[in-house]
Amino acid sequence: MNAGNELALNDFLVKATQRVLERCDRLATFSSMEDGILRQYLTHEHAIANRQVSDWMFCAGMSTHQDSVGNVWGRLGPADRPALVVGSHLDSVPDAGRYDGILGVLLGIAVAEYLKHFEVQIRLPLEVVGFGDEEGTRFARTLMTSKAIAGSWDAEWFDLLDEDGVSLKEAMIGFGLDTNAVEAASRKPETIRAFLEPHIEQGPVLVNEDVPVGVVTAIAGAIRLLITVSGQAAHAGTTPMNMRSDALAGAAEMIVFIEKCASELGVVGTVGAIQSYPGGTNVVPGRVEFSLDLRASADKDRDIAMEKISVSLSEISKRRGLTIHIDTTHEAPAAKCSDSIQRCLATAISSRQLPTISMPSGAGHDTMAMSEVVPSGMLFIRCGEGISHNPLENVDRSDVQVALDVLIHAFLKMNLE
Amino acid sequence: MNAGNELALNDFLVKATQRVLERCDRLATFSSMEDGILRQYLTHEHAIANRQVSDWMFCAGMSTHQDSVGNVWGRLGPADRPALVVGSHLDSVPDAGRYDGILGVLLGIAVAEYLKHFEVQIRLPLEVVGFGDEEGTRFARTLMTSKAIAGSWDAEWFDLLDEDGVSLKEAMIGFGLDTNAVEAASRKPETIRAFLEPHIEQGPVLVNEDVPVGVVTAIAGAIRLLITVSGQAAHAGTTPMNMRSDALAGAAEMIVFIEKCASELGVVGTVGAIQSYPGGTNVVPGRVEFSLDLRASADKDRDIAMEKISVSLSEISKRRGLTIHIDTTHEAPAAKCSDSIQRCLATAISSRQLPTISMPSGAGHDTMAMSEVVPSGMLFIRCGEGISHNPLENVDRSDVQVALDVLIHAFLKMNLE
Repeated sequence: MNAGNELALNDFLVKATQRVLERCDRLATFSSMEDGILRQYLTHEHAIANRQVSDWMFCAGMSTHQDSVGNVWGRLGPADRPALVVGSHLDSVPDAGRYDGILGVLLGIAVAEYLKHFEVQIRLPLEVVGFGDEEGTRFARTLMTSKAIAGSWDAEWFDLLDEDGVSLKEAMIGFGLDTNAVEAASRKPETIRAFLEPHIEQGPVLVNEDVPVGVVTAIAGAIRLLITVSGQAAHAGTTPMNMRSDALAGAAEMIVFIEKCASELGVVGTVGAIQSYPGGTNVVPGRVEFSLDLRASADKDRDIAMEKISVSLSEISKRRGLTIHIDTTHEAPAAKCSDSIQRCLATAISSRQLPTISMPSGAGHDTMAMSEVVPSGMLFIRCGEGISHNPLENVDRSDVQVALDVLIHAFLKMNLE
Repeated sequence: MNAGNELALNDFLVKATQRVLERCDRLATFSSMEDGILRQYLTHEHAIANRQVSDWMFCAGMSTHQDSVGNVWGRLGPADRPALVVGSHLDSVPDAGRYDGILGVLLGIAVAEYLKHFEVQIRLPLEVVGFGDEEGTRFARTLMTSKAIAGSWDAEWFDLLDEDGVSLKEAMIGFGLDTNAVEAASRKPETIRAFLEPHIEQGPVLVNEDVPVGVVTAIAGAIRLLITVSGQAAHAGTTPMNMRSDALAGAAEMIVFIEKCASELGVVGTVGAIQSYPGGTNVVPGRVEFSLDLRASADKDRDIAMEKISVSLSEISKRRGLTIHIDTTHEAPAAKCSDSIQRCLATAISSRQLPTISMPSGAGHDTMAMSEVVPSGMLFIRCGEGISHNPLENVDRSDVQVALDVLIHAFLKMNLE
């Protein structure tokens, strides 16, 4: 690239990044919360967000449509070839930030703008998708709309109810969708060359490493458990220490072990909720319930950790005269990101004289659903202090510009292959 | 004692024990709960319990009166000498058992019955007291009526309100008491030679040792704390283990230390309540609050334990990048039981060919208030499985008979001194 081209590219990146950030601010106003951001699947706010995003796609030279489950799509390039799909989700958690999901959709549109602006000859069609439901806050199911694309929509979901008792089916009809046509949303794998999801990291790794973007290696599989430890409730004053079966002291020893085990095995293990019964200041707890969230980028690692934890928790229970009961409340396998997409992103990053950080994603993403049917990958963008799902969610303008530059570079490279 | 006397004593003990247990059953019917026992200070149930107990005292040959804070008293013997006061409380917790407190009062009356039955020449006057308020369930203050006897009634208590907004003063007036005469209830220390409280153990020690009664060495001082551990809430999936300030993992390490420290130092330390914030399964806890109840039969031991725990909790916090805040919510000094009463009870027990168990009381008792002004002691009676404050509270008839025998023996010994 000569100096003139470099200047022109830089000028484009600055302006396009500015547009991306302004559009994040604009979408943040499409909210059902008075003093915060909430945009749920199949609501009025979803409808106007789709309309707005569709307009921006159109202005970037894309043909657009809304599919039969409410995702919004734009496409650029020859009709007869498999496309690179770039995108993420447009829905939000309650009191959300303005970048989670949305930033990935708008970066995809900015790549299209680049192609239009520089009149790039497109061999590889570019599609941009804005998924309707990733967070699952309305119907308590995550990734429904990307699963529809991957052909794994579950017909039982039609009966799911939201907080107001509205079924998913009723909500779809109210949104103007044909519930008999859900199948039409699923994509034949041969029509997609790859799926690429740019997304804020939602964690502190890039901040700590002081690097603007990272390549995701895998999306961690998660297992969630509810662990019940039972002992014997007793008077805190009259029961000597050696005559107790204290469920909380036992649970505390277990929690310390879980932390140590997760650290040593390179997985993440979190006890987030705990409750002791009867819970009086002057009563030795007879029962404790606590949650365990265990994630690893390889299912094997998670299984090894789970096995070690199970063995140790049983041993602790037995030694203390307690009993333990473990319920699995949620389980999802890990999703590995495509090696070729990881390589392509890494090449793009290092060509910008930036260090390449490869890292797993601890949080779930639409890429989990897409990776089941097409080669998929993710580009993580550093977010302020790692904070997400919070109005304080933030990104640096320069990091967004780096991400856009990397995405353009990656597209151009794949366009030549 | 010759064989005839021994037979006569045994016959008396069997019948008197039977009466004591029947009277426990009778008092259990004076309850404001439909399907359980609840007898609170200055209620109708309190009034009729006092009337009933007063009648039993009268039948045992005692002169009786109700004092200016609602305690019921009986007295036997010469008017001009300091008395041995035997007794405990008549109030109960909600859904109580039928022996906590009451058994001690009725055993005192049975000693009077013995003196009357065998026409013992009384040099040491015997008084029996049924305290009105030990549990403190109505006005959230414990030991109010024994404190009145000890001269430590607090005039501010008049303004305490019960759940229905009735003040203590109003309740006293409603009970027929003269609130200007509270002082009259306090006893000059020189009028009481000793206070002796027979009481169920409410713990498992005597059950484990397989011994019917035990001599209390001290009533443990208690300190109650609310400990707040603050870290940084974070996403359970995206925050690597080494970048966490997990308040719950820290609290767990603290709870394990507290248990170990209390065991090693021979005190009791209990974490009964715990709460994590925000408390989501998939969120690393940013804050945890837990209670600590620490008791020891000597304040020095408790202070040493508290100091060790404070140092260790600070060290754990610091090492983990957490902060800790410790609030003292309650503090009561330990009350040592009189050595001479302990010796007197021990002699009585061993003269019955029973092993003498000396043990601290982990729970609070009226003896705490009385020991501040007169030599005081307690005789613990084994209770079924150590269960108390529960309808399942139980005592063995033969254990009650042993207790009565020991009390009579102890009285007779003091009567000769």
